[in-house]
Amino acid sequence: MTTASIIGGSGYGGGELLRLLLSHPHVEVKQATSRSHLGEYVYQVHPNLRKQTQLKFSDAATLEPVDILFLAQPHGQAQHHIEEYAKIGSKIIDLAADFRLRDPAFYEQWYGEKHAAPEWLSKFVYGLPELHRADLANANYVSGVGCNATASNLALLPLVKADLLDTSFPVFIEIKVGSSESGAEGNAGSHHAERANVIRTFSAFGHRHTAEVIQEMGVQQVSLTMTAVDLVRGVLATAHAKVKPGVATKDLWKAYRLVANENPFVRIVKEQRGIYRVPEPKILAGTNYADLGFELDESSGHIVSMCAIDNLMKGAAGSAVQCTNLIMGWAETTGLEFSGLHPI
Amino acid sequence: MTTASIIGGSGYGGGELLRLLLSHPHVEVKQATSRSHLGEYVYQVHPNLRKQTQLKFSDAATLEPVDILFLAQPHGQAQHHIEEYAKIGSKIIDLAADFRLRDPAFYEQWYGEKHAAPEWLSKFVYGLPELHRADLANANYVSGVGCNATASNLALLPLVKADLLDTSFPVFIEIKVGSSESGAEGNAGSHHAERANVIRTFSAFGHRHTAEVIQEMGVQQVSLTMTAVDLVRGVLATAHAKVKPGVATKDLWKAYRLVANENPFVRIVKEQRGIYRVPEPKILAGTNYADLGFELDESSGHIVSMCAIDNLMKGAAGSAVQCTNLIMGWAETTGLEFSGLHPI
Amino acid sequence: MTTASIIGGSGYGGGELLRLLLSHPHVEVKQATSRSHLGEYVYQVHPNLRKQTQLKFSDAATLEPVDILFLAQPHGQAQHHIEEYAKIGSKIIDLAADFRLRDPAFYEQWYGEKHAAPEWLSKFVYGLPELHRADLANANYVSGVGCNATASNLALLPLVKADLLDTSFPVFIEIKVGSSESGAEGNAGSHHAERANVIRTFSAFGHRHTAEVIQEMGVQQVSLTMTAVDLVRGVLATAHAKVKPGVATKDLWKAYRLVANENPFVRIVKEQRGIYRVPEPKILAGTNYADLGFELDESSGHIVSMCAIDNLMKGAAGSAVQCTNLIMGWAETTGLEFSGLHPI
Amino acid sequence: MTTASIIGGSGYGGGELLRLLLSHPHVEVKQATSRSHLGEYVYQVHPNLRKQTQLKFSDAATLEPVDILFLAQPHGQAQHHIEEYAKIGSKIIDLAADFRLRDPAFYEQWYGEKHAAPEWLSKFVYGLPELHRADLANANYVSGVGCNATASNLALLPLVKADLLDTSFPVFIEIKVGSSESGAEGNAGSHHAERANVIRTFSAFGHRHTAEVIQEMGVQQVSLTMTAVDLVRGVLATAHAKVKPGVATKDLWKAYRLVANENPFVRIVKEQRGIYRVPEPKILAGTNYADLGFELDESSGHIVSMCAIDNLMKGAAGSAVQCTNLIMGWAETTGLEFSGLHPI
Repeated sequence: MTTASIIGGSGYGGGELLRLLLSHPHVEVKQATSRSHLGEYVYQVHPNLRKQTQLKFSDAATLEPVDILFLAQPHGQAQHHIEEYAKIGSKIIDLAADFRLRDPAFYEQWYGEKHAAPEWLSKFVYGLPELHRADLANANYVSGVGCNATASNLALLPLVKADLLDTSFPVFIEIKVGSSESGAEGNAGSHHAERANVIRTFSAFGHRHTAEVIQEMGVQQVSLTMTAVDLVRGVLATAHAKVKPGVATKDLWKAYRLVANENPFVRIVKEQRGIYRVPEPKILAGTNYADLGFELDESSGHIVSMCAIDNLMKGAAGSAVQCTNLIMGWAETTGLEFSGLHPI
Repeated sequence: MTTASIIGGSGYGGGELLRLLLSHPHVEVKQATSRSHLGEYVYQVHPNLRKQTQLKFSDAATLEPVDILFLAQPHGQAQHHIEEYAKIGSKIIDLAADFRLRDPAFYEQWYGEKHAAPEWLSKFVYGLPELHRADLANANYVSGVGCNATASNLALLPLVKADLLDTSFPVFIEIKVGSSESGAEGNAGSHHAERANVIRTFSAFGHRHTAEVIQEMGVQQVSLTMTAVDLVRGVLATAHAKVKPGVATKDLWKAYRLVANENPFVRIVKEQRGIYRVPEPKILAGTNYADLGFELDESSGHIVSMCAIDNLMKGAAGSAVQCTNLIMGWAETTGLEFSGLHPI
Repeated sequence: MTTASIIGGSGYGGGELLRLLLSHPHVEVKQATSRSHLGEYVYQVHPNLRKQTQLKFSDAATLEPVDILFLAQPHGQAQHHIEEYAKIGSKIIDLAADFRLRDPAFYEQWYGEKHAAPEWLSKFVYGLPELHRADLANANYVSGVGCNATASNLALLPLVKADLLDTSFPVFIEIKVGSSESGAEGNAGSHHAERANVIRTFSAFGHRHTAEVIQEMGVQQVSLTMTAVDLVRGVLATAHAKVKPGVATKDLWKAYRLVANENPFVRIVKEQRGIYRVPEPKILAGTNYADLGFELDESSGHIVSMCAIDNLMKGAAGSAVQCTNLIMGWAETTGLEFSGLHPI
Repeated sequence: MTTASIIGGSGYGGGELLRLLLSHPHVEVKQATSRSHLGEYVYQVHPNLRKQTQLKFSDAATLEPVDILFLAQPHGQAQHHIEEYAKIGSKIIDLAADFRLRDPAFYEQWYGEKHAAPEWLSKFVYGLPELHRADLANANYVSGVGCNATASNLALLPLVKADLLDTSFPVFIEIKVGSSESGAEGNAGSHHAERANVIRTFSAFGHRHTAEVIQEMGVQQVSLTMTAVDLVRGVLATAHAKVKPGVATKDLWKAYRLVANENPFVRIVKEQRGIYRVPEPKILAGTNYADLGFELDESSGHIVSMCAIDNLMKGAAGSAVQCTNLIMGWAETTGLEFSGLHPI
């Protein structure tokens, strides 16, 4: 068994990682740390893990060396401790934003401060297998992915890969998200009486995940507009863009099918009947799928490309485990077989 | 115009009071205090009041004398300041639990500490018009009502009033509540990602509102079991009790109709067709209605009596305004005419 | 008292009209018709109206002449009966889509069939007071407004009125809607177990309400993308557009304030602190407000303009009553004073 | 591989069975029938199964012999076809109510009509492993379990098994349920705009599942009161009962622990801190767990015993697969390992 520990196990990303790793056939979880829940049983914080584990949250200072160290802390911590973490884990999978951007200047532009370990940025592979599968096979250090960036990148991937976008035209990505995105801590606006029933556009421009879309998709004119809706898990990214002159619906089918065929967790949802005709995040809860769909207005070249994911899975812990499978040489879907629920 | 001020205007009860008083034809709101939102516009905290008022939250130390002083603070504060409050308002309407129980020993039993102003307890009339309409006409001091107690008391009222209950048998009241009951502050469990979708029995026994049911209904064996469900506003109390031998459904109709006829805000909901056959809190949002219903198992004498209310209205601010109308000699329904919404 | 009847009173728009008219100080409701609920009490279908009225649904064949006839039928019926309706009501307020478009050819283009009474189209004034207040003062026939069109039109109004839009650039309007939009009938996809928790983009292009935006705003390149979310009442339209070179945030403030000042039901929501910083439909339930907000990316000229409304109020029955007030010469806000609830 | 087919695969119970069987290591699904969705891909109805199977719904007339035949039809059909079904499947697992009650007279009393195949009733074992594990090992025919009955029976099991109940006192079970209980068909009351936000007591007495509690627990005075709340999956049964004189909390711990230790899918949830202190259905979505909890009022002997389950899993398909494992001699938890999600 490959040994693994998690730093920051009491947050939502850490909890999801724990769920996945505790049932992963090749992994043995040794420790999970937490400051706020130190000494408590993991199942007291993550009640779904009752009768699954007797592990208690431990102190990060007690971490012993493992094969793989997972980092599930809030943003901005890992970059200050990466040297010591590298002594604990031969391989490191981060879930936070610390090592997602390759260029220190670009990092400073979007995060408003200098990176604390810029020399480490190039050692990390961006942790989205649909973009970097080959690189991951040889990687020791894998970055996290932003959940909104992931939904955006996968919505654009078929178009970018097949070079169908008219890049003189800006890309507007409207993203609708559930409440688990804001993390386990919560804030005044996440109180149920305020957060229930909302359609709240909390960020029109400038979301930090935009940087990951620019870096990974190579599009320069792109904006992410974030709207909170009444849901716990899930993201739907709706990208509005313009295709090159002459691009028709059949070209799009070809481009999307190519991506779906190459990637075990990508599906196309574009049905003519039934209730579920388009990608919807609700049925993805707990799964690692990214469901893609599109509609083209052939007269104007306006394309609406959609990607639905579970922000805690494909947008965080699921992709992290998928990357783990790749760097370890295991089957890519190991431990990620849950198909999701209907109805839900 | 009658002048009024509110101490504690930034909580949910205070906000609801502000909404009602700002549109009340006989009342002029002079001040509303808040510690946490001092100096902010009222509409920044209660966004429904935008374009309704330019009032800002003020400091309680600046309160000037008014005809009626409303207290909408957390429990346990008013009893320490009641003497000074009595100098500000000739009449006082409290929304909190400080002056609900008449007997200091009973208060201590349920609240676990001595009352700070026991001599004031007898000066207050319990603020539920359906129980104390006559007394209220001559009152200067009116207590608040517990929202769960109100739903419970009104569920039992027809049975108690017509003396139909077999009191040798305990009364079990199952209460389902929305998230606004826990107040504007929130807590770890009220984070949307944790609170959404819940059916959470957070208190099986011993809820403090039980004391108000014992005091007002005169039943000794009664328990309130509290379950949080996914809703913002609303309470449904389902009382399980036993009727005296021989009591039949027609006797119950008579008893419930009597209460509904005597009280402008009590309605009976007991339909044989349609979607809305029983009392439901959701359609009561913003209204002062208490909807009652019942089912009797004639073979066993087991009765299920239901009462639905909006906890912030009939269970708090609405009853307070109704009491205000009564003590001022205004029409009982003034300012409480909103009929509620369908669908919602 | 002015007499009024409603054809089609058992749907959601009809129910909302009934609620408003029953409490309107100048209106007496004579009849409300329904096929599916003929003979039932209005409150059996609209449970919020219990103890408000003893009216029963009647047969349209029994309608007697009234001062104002309201039409709240499904689309496509009124145009076949308009001549007979004109004999019943001296003034007619329609809520459906039959008389919204002025040009019969444009109607045919968007509705896919010839209009049955094209000569009547020019007799109707489009029923949005913010656009046609002066014309409404002299109108006898008022059309309904599409709820999504209304949110879109009001999101664009400040920009169009102040001529700030770069019309060479298309306008993309992302609209998120609650479940009451689909009407009281429901369908397979509106079953709670399927509809709860959704983020479902049910229409990427071609929604019929687009025609009303083109007609009323004069923009030619505009698309409405419709996404259902978990909410009962409410629409948020987020318009993405480009402003003319040099337009700055201060110009936008001026343009939005102008519209808010001229219209009693338009508010600007653009706060720097608190929970409610942007327009949100949830707090508008039951109100006639349209809340506007905006964000400008000055570097690119990309503007995000938002409008939140209650689809059954400002997007249907509320605007209809507001128009009624105008054509009758009553104060514009009569009967529409409800301020909405917080929390909800 | 053991072969299996499902009659009635397009409903919610059938869909859940398909999900479980398609990933079950010892089972090969041959056919799934549906009338309303004949010829459609299974994933068009159950969108979670996209990329999991290419199976299409087939006609029941085409069913070929299999090792195990699962019946997931609406109640009242299987009893008319059981002879032919027995020719198709050597073993039969029913999910419906046709074969749950052992006594034909008792069946007639609760279902209001004579059973069509009374001689088959005694051939079926009631399909709740926690009650009939030993019998199931030798069974060929297994009945379904009512979801509300299952939550009730498991809430009572520790008390009945340890003989702690004062049976002279009636048992009142308050059950709160999600919308998936009403099945995939839906009805007027399940329209999202009506069903969202509800606390709707749709049945105070006489729910048919009561019969299963009487039969399996041996209690005679028991009532189930059903309340719909805003949730898709999940049941919480709260049983109010009286324990024998002298029974203390420690006796209850012992009784509940005994049941939890004997049964892999039973857990006790009774914590003093954290958010999840009591059984809650939401975290059980997709799992086969039954979470139990209790509170005792030692002064009165009033016990509140709670059981939370996922109605489609432990209350239907999950128990069916657990029974399948038992009758086939496979490990009891095979294919039921999903731990559930947090948050959700």
